[in-house]
Amino acid sequence: MNTERPLILVVNDDGVTAPGIRTLIRLMKTIGDVVVVAPNSPQSGMSHAITLEAPLYVERVVLESGSQIEYACSGTPADCVKLAFNKLLTRKPDLCVSGINHGSNSSTNVLYSGTMAAALEGAIKGIPSIGFSLLDHSQDADFSQSEEFVLKIAKQVLKNGLPSGVCLNVNIPKLPKEELKGFKICRQADGKWQEDIEERTSPLGKIYYWLFGSFVNFDKGNDTDIWALENNYISVVPVQFDLTAHDSIQQLKTWNNG
Amino acid sequence: MNTERPLILVVNDDGVTAPGIRTLIRLMKTIGDVVVVAPNSPQSGMSHAITLEAPLYVERVVLESGSQIEYACSGTPADCVKLAFNKLLTRKPDLCVSGINHGSNSSTNVLYSGTMAAALEGAIKGIPSIGFSLLDHSQDADFSQSEEFVLKIAKQVLKNGLPSGVCLNVNIPKLPKEELKGFKICRQADGKWQEDIEERTSPLGKIYYWLFGSFVNFDKGNDTDIWALENNYISVVPVQFDLTAHDSIQQLKTWNNG
Repeated sequence: MNTERPLILVVNDDGVTAPGIRTLIRLMKTIGDVVVVAPNSPQSGMSHAITLEAPLYVERVVLESGSQIEYACSGTPADCVKLAFNKLLTRKPDLCVSGINHGSNSSTNVLYSGTMAAALEGAIKGIPSIGFSLLDHSQDADFSQSEEFVLKIAKQVLKNGLPSGVCLNVNIPKLPKEELKGFKICRQADGKWQEDIEERTSPLGKIYYWLFGSFVNFDKGNDTDIWALENNYISVVPVQFDLTAHDSIQQLKTWNNG
Repeated sequence: MNTERPLILVVNDDGVTAPGIRTLIRLMKTIGDVVVVAPNSPQSGMSHAITLEAPLYVERVVLESGSQIEYACSGTPADCVKLAFNKLLTRKPDLCVSGINHGSNSSTNVLYSGTMAAALEGAIKGIPSIGFSLLDHSQDADFSQSEEFVLKIAKQVLKNGLPSGVCLNVNIPKLPKEELKGFKICRQADGKWQEDIEERTSPLGKIYYWLFGSFVNFDKGNDTDIWALENNYISVVPVQFDLTAHDSIQQLKTWNNG
């Protein structure tokens, strides 16, 4: 491998064959040497889950021609990053990119996202990391309009790095390229899923439930990711793995100790 | 159900039969009406994973005598909280408690923890929520020394509530009660797993990997959860689900837009 080009680790949560990661691999090959370590099956909604009590299988795969080295892994997106760093990469990567996810990871969706967990795991490993998502769930989603922006932000991060402990959560609206207004640096909107549970009965007579719902944004701010996406911007949220609510520490210290 | 007593939702990630949740149920019954919605199998390391493409099964179970109502669920800890709120609880709970986890959830372990994901999900639902963990992985861990402290903090949260968007991550050292010095309000320590990957060959000749490792604390601060635990305190970290790195927003805005 030519060590003069940056080494880029590509991961996702939709699985190694998903159109989103195929697009990302193709783009990253134009700016670096690419190693792919991605799940061998869809892992949407897996968040930062790791495999503790089962063995992991890893297979070298060739899904298309080119210089990239690709592995399909039986684990979660976070497992993929851990395996990459500890077993599969021959040197520390310069960049870790995750996605392009099929569907939004804006607002509190970041918590459930395997795509963003992989990016956070990259940040924990000390590597500048970015999760990309397109607001289109379909398998035949059109990623072409986002290509220029994905490349631009990846190059920017390669050049400037990122603050320690921080990765980027990039969401791209489903719009023709000419309607995209560029990037907006934002905060995570205060929204949540209002779930609905549908009760059904299996052919064997057993009751089961489906979890579904709709996402509701309670946040009126014009500095949020949802605002940006609704106004034709690509949202860029710096995301950290320090979950401490620092502002609450003083308040809690007023409680009696015992 | 007597509506004058607080309603307490109890959840965990080790599964409904784990000694940790049995202790927590017994304690919570002394201060409220208890509904348990917990996984029917161990879900350690499941983080905030949710079940998107599979049905969920829920079963009413009676594991010991008492007034508590208990459900075992086929999903993740976060699924359990969602099912509780949308299907199983007849009114909004006053408190959501998760655990007592068998093993530490201090520092960045909070990211991988199903126990803490359940507490965060409670906070997303707007309910004061606490995750409890004892620094002892064993199935015959002794939870008795922590009982007084668990009750105390649960009562405190019932009385005072918690800041919006914040839950508590409470970790208890494995020590005799007389050596516990009380609570310390802290921040999440900057530590991480240094993984090791062990390669093995299955009886069928297929190579597989085990993920393991050791946790390393890089944080020299005496205001962290790991410092507190190493100094015989129960650590209490306020944890939030807004992952925005607010301090990095201005810095990123200096990048060229395009």
